[in-house]
Amino acid sequence: MSRVLVTGASGFVGRPTVDALVAAGHEVHGVARSVGAVGAVKWHAADLLADPASVVADVRPEILVHLAWSAEHGRFWTDPANVDWVASSATMLRAFAASGGRRAVIAGTCAEYDWSLGGDDPLDEARSPVRPATLYGAAKAALHDLAAAFMDQEGLELAWGRVFFPYGAGEAPGRIVAAVAGSLLRGEVAETSAGTQVRDFIHVDDVGGAFAALAGSDVTGAVNIGTGAGVVLRDLIAQVAEAAGRPDLVRLGALPMREGEPRSLVADVSRLRGEVGFEPAVDLASGIAAELDALRA
Amino acid sequence: MSRVLVTGASGFVGRPTVDALVAAGHEVHGVARSVGAVGAVKWHAADLLADPASVVADVRPEILVHLAWSAEHGRFWTDPANVDWVASSATMLRAFAASGGRRAVIAGTCAEYDWSLGGDDPLDEARSPVRPATLYGAAKAALHDLAAAFMDQEGLELAWGRVFFPYGAGEAPGRIVAAVAGSLLRGEVAETSAGTQVRDFIHVDDVGGAFAALAGSDVTGAVNIGTGAGVVLRDLIAQVAEAAGRPDLVRLGALPMREGEPRSLVADVSRLRGEVGFEPAVDLASGIAAELDALRA
Repeated sequence: MSRVLVTGASGFVGRPTVDALVAAGHEVHGVARSVGAVGAVKWHAADLLADPASVVADVRPEILVHLAWSAEHGRFWTDPANVDWVASSATMLRAFAASGGRRAVIAGTCAEYDWSLGGDDPLDEARSPVRPATLYGAAKAALHDLAAAFMDQEGLELAWGRVFFPYGAGEAPGRIVAAVAGSLLRGEVAETSAGTQVRDFIHVDDVGGAFAALAGSDVTGAVNIGTGAGVVLRDLIAQVAEAAGRPDLVRLGALPMREGEPRSLVADVSRLRGEVGFEPAVDLASGIAAELDALRA
Repeated sequence: MSRVLVTGASGFVGRPTVDALVAAGHEVHGVARSVGAVGAVKWHAADLLADPASVVADVRPEILVHLAWSAEHGRFWTDPANVDWVASSATMLRAFAASGGRRAVIAGTCAEYDWSLGGDDPLDEARSPVRPATLYGAAKAALHDLAAAFMDQEGLELAWGRVFFPYGAGEAPGRIVAAVAGSLLRGEVAETSAGTQVRDFIHVDDVGGAFAALAGSDVTGAVNIGTGAGVVLRDLIAQVAEAAGRPDLVRLGALPMREGEPRSLVADVSRLRGEVGFEPAVDLASGIAAELDALRA
């Protein structure tokens, strides 16, 4: 069991990650801008963009799980703060190495991959080219390359979790499940695209579980965090509509597809399953039902 | 003519860059940790690792020529401060964009390229793979990827000068020309490797001229800064020995080749010549003679 510092610990992915790390018996320290929760976690208030080093130097974690980033729905793709997060993360890693850290696990994204290839094959950490089309993807990929070279040179471990399409209770209201469910539960029409695109949706509790498993393993390098199973978006929407009891309010095709939207984005999860030994536990129906329960509450 | 801010302005590459920018009629502002020179340049003292944003916000340059980096001879390849320079540079670019900047020119390195391919062909900005083997190369390449995505998104220009093998008066005493010349001028034996490797040596005044030309152009993306002509290292050493009048003191082959030393590293300079319109002016014999004069002085 290790002393683990989690950044972004109060966020959408951070909360289940912290829970899974606590369940695994680690001594978990969480960083957030404002400290709300308590419990089994020792919380530290810090603005990592202003001072990324002090909390690392104070806690002296063996393992750093770095999830904090610009994450505002819709805006994060182009947020200039993506650049600041690279700077902050680089400084944090230096402080981590200097304070005796051993292993860093950092949240990457499937948006690091080249999405222009059509996506007929699952995206593979080693074989699929990294060619991000957005500032968000480029910033994450640049941090990956920098962090990998630095940690390797210093003899430290880096694991890089490329997160696919998380959903679940607590997600931003603009994300697809929350947006459709929210409209339907209010009795409003939900307009969507034709929804023909295939995406690897993974419940956020499984994302948290995967990060905790990655932290507790000795696997290094990029590891996709997905289920390996693609879901056609319109089927996801249909499941949400059924669960909400209002399939009549869904208007598939009322919105255009976004330009350049790739047909399929599904993770090859050989590394996550075979090397990390992590298997997602939440099936889509249960995940959607739980999110609807939370939205109704 | 533009207001240009040059970082690393008092350094080896910075000084001739500043001179060339002044000669081109720009309003040149230089940043250095301690302000020594005056003249046609307005100097600003700043520690860019501690505060990369203030000087940019103060000067409000139209063009940023960013040369400052960890540059201690021998040590820069693995200096952990490479990571800090990525952080500092990212923060500086954000401040530059926020203060109305239009065009950034940043010093990259030929060490961004994959050196394991043997180097039989000249290295080309578009076709040669980027796969750095050192923290220095990785940090520069990561900054490139981040800066390119950010500047492109913001509608600003980025030119990235990949510097090959600069030499000239004022270089670090451990660099090849200064080291051999220094030994010979002191009447000491100079031990070198067999010197069969081919390198694109470019006089530092031409590096400065190339950066100034790049700053004054509208060329974007990566641009090799070299001569396009490879020199066999032992021929360079022989020229230095002739100029010093002590070929008898050179011991070619007394030192082993460094492991993994590539056979040839020469720039394809089609972009620098054809698009930027810059042609190196200092031939090897003149450059070596001038450096020896400076060492004798």
